[in-house]
Amino acid sequence: MKRAFLSGVFAFVLLAVSPAAEKSFSPVDYVNPFIGTTNFGTTNPGAVCPNGMMSVVPFNVMGSADNKYDKDARWWSTPYEYHNCFFTGYSHVNLSGVGCPELGSLLLMPTTGELSVDYKEYGSRYEDEQASPGYYTNFLTRYNVKTEVTATPRTGVARFTFPKGRSHILLNLGEGLTNETGAFLRQTGECEFEGMKLLGTFCYNPQAVFPIYFVMRVNKTPLKTGYWKKQRPMTGVEAEWDPDNGKYKLYTGYRKELAGDDIGAFLTFDTGESEQIEVQMGVSFVSIENARLNLDKEQSGKDFDKVLAESRKRWHDDLSRIIVEGGTDEQKIVFYTALYHALIHPNLLQDVNGQYPAMESNRILTAKGDRYTVFSLWDTYRNVHQLLTLVYPERQLQMVRSMLDMYREHGWLPKWELYGRETLTMEGDPSIPVIVDTWLKGLRGFDVELAYEAMRKGAVLPGTENLLRPDNDDYLSLGYVPLREQYDNSVSHALEYYIADNALSRMAEALAKDAEVKGQKEKARRYKEDARLFYNRSLGYKHYYSKEYGTFRPILPNGEFYAPFDPRQGENFEPNPGFHEGCAWNYTFYVPHDVKGLAQLMGGKKAFVDKLQRVFDEGLYDPANEPDIAYAHLFSYFKGEEWRTQKELHRLLQKYFKNAPDGIPGNDDTGTMSAWAIFNMMGFYPDCPGEPSYTLSTPVFDKVTIRLDAEVWGREQLVIETERPSDDSLYIREMELGGKRLSRFRISHQELVEGGKLRFVLR
Amino acid sequence: MKRAFLSGVFAFVLLAVSPAAEKSFSPVDYVNPFIGTTNFGTTNPGAVCPNGMMSVVPFNVMGSADNKYDKDARWWSTPYEYHNCFFTGYSHVNLSGVGCPELGSLLLMPTTGELSVDYKEYGSRYEDEQASPGYYTNFLTRYNVKTEVTATPRTGVARFTFPKGRSHILLNLGEGLTNETGAFLRQTGECEFEGMKLLGTFCYNPQAVFPIYFVMRVNKTPLKTGYWKKQRPMTGVEAEWDPDNGKYKLYTGYRKELAGDDIGAFLTFDTGESEQIEVQMGVSFVSIENARLNLDKEQSGKDFDKVLAESRKRWHDDLSRIIVEGGTDEQKIVFYTALYHALIHPNLLQDVNGQYPAMESNRILTAKGDRYTVFSLWDTYRNVHQLLTLVYPERQLQMVRSMLDMYREHGWLPKWELYGRETLTMEGDPSIPVIVDTWLKGLRGFDVELAYEAMRKGAVLPGTENLLRPDNDDYLSLGYVPLREQYDNSVSHALEYYIADNALSRMAEALAKDAEVKGQKEKARRYKEDARLFYNRSLGYKHYYSKEYGTFRPILPNGEFYAPFDPRQGENFEPNPGFHEGCAWNYTFYVPHDVKGLAQLMGGKKAFVDKLQRVFDEGLYDPANEPDIAYAHLFSYFKGEEWRTQKELHRLLQKYFKNAPDGIPGNDDTGTMSAWAIFNMMGFYPDCPGEPSYTLSTPVFDKVTIRLDAEVWGREQLVIETERPSDDSLYIREMELGGKRLSRFRISHQELVEGGKLRFVLR
Repeated sequence: MKRAFLSGVFAFVLLAVSPAAEKSFSPVDYVNPFIGTTNFGTTNPGAVCPNGMMSVVPFNVMGSADNKYDKDARWWSTPYEYHNCFFTGYSHVNLSGVGCPELGSLLLMPTTGELSVDYKEYGSRYEDEQASPGYYTNFLTRYNVKTEVTATPRTGVARFTFPKGRSHILLNLGEGLTNETGAFLRQTGECEFEGMKLLGTFCYNPQAVFPIYFVMRVNKTPLKTGYWKKQRPMTGVEAEWDPDNGKYKLYTGYRKELAGDDIGAFLTFDTGESEQIEVQMGVSFVSIENARLNLDKEQSGKDFDKVLAESRKRWHDDLSRIIVEGGTDEQKIVFYTALYHALIHPNLLQDVNGQYPAMESNRILTAKGDRYTVFSLWDTYRNVHQLLTLVYPERQLQMVRSMLDMYREHGWLPKWELYGRETLTMEGDPSIPVIVDTWLKGLRGFDVELAYEAMRKGAVLPGTENLLRPDNDDYLSLGYVPLREQYDNSVSHALEYYIADNALSRMAEALAKDAEVKGQKEKARRYKEDARLFYNRSLGYKHYYSKEYGTFRPILPNGEFYAPFDPRQGENFEPNPGFHEGCAWNYTFYVPHDVKGLAQLMGGKKAFVDKLQRVFDEGLYDPANEPDIAYAHLFSYFKGEEWRTQKELHRLLQKYFKNAPDGIPGNDDTGTMSAWAIFNMMGFYPDCPGEPSYTLSTPVFDKVTIRLDAEVWGREQLVIETERPSDDSLYIREMELGGKRLSRFRISHQELVEGGKLRFVLR
Repeated sequence: MKRAFLSGVFAFVLLAVSPAAEKSFSPVDYVNPFIGTTNFGTTNPGAVCPNGMMSVVPFNVMGSADNKYDKDARWWSTPYEYHNCFFTGYSHVNLSGVGCPELGSLLLMPTTGELSVDYKEYGSRYEDEQASPGYYTNFLTRYNVKTEVTATPRTGVARFTFPKGRSHILLNLGEGLTNETGAFLRQTGECEFEGMKLLGTFCYNPQAVFPIYFVMRVNKTPLKTGYWKKQRPMTGVEAEWDPDNGKYKLYTGYRKELAGDDIGAFLTFDTGESEQIEVQMGVSFVSIENARLNLDKEQSGKDFDKVLAESRKRWHDDLSRIIVEGGTDEQKIVFYTALYHALIHPNLLQDVNGQYPAMESNRILTAKGDRYTVFSLWDTYRNVHQLLTLVYPERQLQMVRSMLDMYREHGWLPKWELYGRETLTMEGDPSIPVIVDTWLKGLRGFDVELAYEAMRKGAVLPGTENLLRPDNDDYLSLGYVPLREQYDNSVSHALEYYIADNALSRMAEALAKDAEVKGQKEKARRYKEDARLFYNRSLGYKHYYSKEYGTFRPILPNGEFYAPFDPRQGENFEPNPGFHEGCAWNYTFYVPHDVKGLAQLMGGKKAFVDKLQRVFDEGLYDPANEPDIAYAHLFSYFKGEEWRTQKELHRLLQKYFKNAPDGIPGNDDTGTMSAWAIFNMMGFYPDCPGEPSYTLSTPVFDKVTIRLDAEVWGREQLVIETERPSDDSLYIREMELGGKRLSRFRISHQELVEGGKLRFVLR
């Protein structure tokens, strides 16, 4: 068997038909970290803690033509590909499920025999690959070295089991997934190195750069150590004199700072048969001192096994917040792996002493509580934060606080924040629905006045002064964004603004009510005015509706529709005027805040439902990108059409979410695809970001128990039970909420939580 | 006028025919720093203090095809060439008069207008170039910027006079004379940057690398600042996405550490007409903190003019230790410029707090007194240290102490030491004659037992364990080094060992006498035994004498002479079996410790003298490389032939030492060529390194007054007077020493110093 995602424990669970086995159930054993590791899922099987800064990932995307996918030969955004075969080390701190190359550096590689520091030479094929939460292992066939890795929140540790003979450990700072280069390093003791590597230019934003600092330690004194650096090529006479010209030069005696584009360190050992060496790696985005502090605090006195046990325990605790029963092992694996993937980002930014790099600043600040980073908000505003709000409210609240701190530090809420840098990737104003949704659902432990100020700023400032809405001048004056450049994604921009403005109007409404209750009339009046303003803006989508094509269509600056127009253009990520990463069909139903209004525009319920059905029937639905992922739920806005939601979601889950490396339909988008599966497998989905409601559909499990934070939600758990006459039962016959008959297929968050128990009877 | 070496003061001196002018005489005004800046003299006109760590040198050897000599287009070893025309900044910390590319980095460049950070674009032609000790200035015609630089011992300061408008200051860490690359930098305040650059691989010794740390400050707050880095080229899809691919990318907001091969910082200002900005640069070979400390200590509260005045004062004090009278202005300029060049290396290594990088170690130690570095000993053992011993004994003593500390730290005396690294450039065991000469002349403030132990170690250890004499096995067993590889320089190696062993035998003899005086009989016996052993070894040169050719000739491992043999092969630096940088003729008379023995081998006095004369007459003498530079003095070993010494030295001085950019015959070799001129212009020369004697010849000045350290030499001054019947008088008619008639043309150091006054009467 080439790969197994099973740790020893899981091998047991698979055989678990006996009642005894049931007792040892842990969701950890149902996580297959290989799901999503091909088909551009861009997840990876590395070791990571829930929302941890550190991940340790097998890096197999460079160094050999035998690899199917090479990071430098094509667009490539993940340190690992399931179908590759050539390993060149473990990368430390990685992104999971993103579409641009970033991070994935500090490459740690064990080798044996003659020393080579050229990754084109020193890589190895591998076998016996296994992974489980917090653990990954493989066996390097070229070197007969077993490698294993695990992680704490801010540090990693590798255990290499060497054969007898001359062995090496390499730390490569010249390569990595990031396209930024430049590093320095220094040996600080017999067994310790420290240094920095520059990261960034995420999605080719040239200024979004930031340093990662590290301290690396080995638990055996090396026979010798040294550095390497690729030498800049010289020409002519001097080149003839330099034996290292254009090559990797070894620095065998020098131990002070080394700096350069392509540098690294090597440690050489005499190892006995099966001798194990452990390599600890602490990181920080603040300083080398903090990297050392993180390492000391999180790994002092712990060996590999202890770190691994703690990492598994963290995953067990987090994943156990939802217990599913019934359903197949395959479904459980899909579900818990999705939950695992949804708990990777956003992740910790601050060090153990609370320090973190301030947003878009060169200052270092100290956080109260956790400071989160990696906010891929255009993706995650749709469902990841809704999942966290319900199940991990303490984390969601802290994420909102982090977003507000970013506003305090930088003057703007985040759009796509990455380790303190605003990368401005994708469009819209996605912080708004996240904050509004969180507030409206009742998580109120943040400065709401500041939040409103921050959200309003992006909504009202002119385009030239507006980091988040650069086309706000057009948007405010026209009610839409005209196409001013061929590929300016103008329609996509505007659709995002509508959704954000709808959410903001809901917030203003709620704050108006609060103000009224408090007798603050003038305040209430102003909020009401805002609510009206933003709500009216949110309906501007109607400008884009083309009766001729029955889809949204770009509008030219002169007010005419863009022509020639093909609503199918944009499939397969080809550039498409007005639309970002999709065709007009992928966007035309993306008005979740005014589904009824859109239906009216389209000629009423039947026309809407027929057209939406056609999207699914004719393959116009893209399961792999965000704008249309809540299309299936829209049927349920229309009485009698809810079965279509249930049918399509069943089909989509079956087809696209599998216990297989290609078991995610495209980029996981820091858990967005996974959160989609989680909600829909449980039977409810938050299809309108910023509105605290869910559309109900058929659960795949017989029972789902969500452990709730009683202080937040007023109850210990939320239970979803499903009575399933046969395994094929697909459609919902009746529902109960809190023991009372339920006839609506959309319910509010408050109803759900107060109900406490949702019961489905299928037919 | 394109260039002037004259400061304002000197312009006055040139006109100094009036008696009033004589009063303001300062040797500083007779230094032309442009001497040696072409014809491979490899000196430079930069600002430096006597034996200072810092030098600030106009860097004009890259960035334009208009330059005649480009550092990357050929073998090139100096930051400045007189005939080049294109300036790309000031390099900080440079070597003077060496033959391999090294140091010359931290390039500081002022520009105006649109910002460019590519040195191929931002360089400028210049005019109004002037230099004097501690000062250099030019005018950048492209930018209308006047640039001036001066230096303290460990720091530099530049003053740029800008036109009105947008101005920039660039710090380029990617380029420089050194072939090592890699640097990091960080902006630490509005007006301050710090960082490190890697230097080394001197003469392509790949392990001789070391870091230079710096702190740079400007005295005006920049409008904006940023970094740049040349991006590694990408190919394919990702390259298309990256606007900076393969280009210099500007980092406009990032202020934390930047690292890489080719990086830099820019500072942009709005300047008024003729606004001056000063840029201070502190360096250290220990740490950034020490670079800051050096800057604070040496420049705090001082502006450019104050630093310049102090630098001139230092030069005035040092150069005034020798006052020459009579002779032409040209001769005075040649003389004082030579003295200036002889006082550049060895230079300070330790910071103001005494810290320095230990020899071949990663440790930092604290020096008692000055710690010197840049020991080009194969060159300087011949005359530079002899000059220092006589005129700057406090410095010479401290240099010997530094050499012994190197032995303490590294286990070996230096051969070619460079900032704590042993580069092992050239051959032999050149510390021995330096230490022996110093001791025998009476400078005894060092641990002589340790010194003897250190010298003996190199002399007796087997080749495999012997860093300094790797071919010691052959040398000890055969008495010579056979040719084992075509270009192994075996004869050159052995000739150096003979000289070193002769010196060591003198030392052993002296120590034996000391021991006898103290009644330490056994010790005395052992020293005597050593003296005999080393003396006998020193005569091994006879093996190499080929009667057939009348020259030295390589010997094959089988004992036969190497064939085919051409004693002229090796001219013009072409490779030559057995001989390093020269032909057999350049080495055949290089047995200064046994001139009479060599003469006997050659057939007696007449044969010797005739052959030696032939060397001069037939152009077989190379004035530009060390092995034969004391040939002319050898005539004086033979009664009646001294006139030949006087005649040839007169001719050589006239021909090769001029007040002109090509006024040094080849590499100055850290002052060796200059020291040759100094001694010979004063009328005495130490032609046998390790033997405390001088050969006398015709002084070019009427009076030379050397201020002596009375505590060391027992008198205040040494005066050399010359009575010259006519300007053409060349030969010595009679001599007096200490008022007594002198009939010998070789005298001991003790005789000279005790005599106090040497009087020549010419004919």
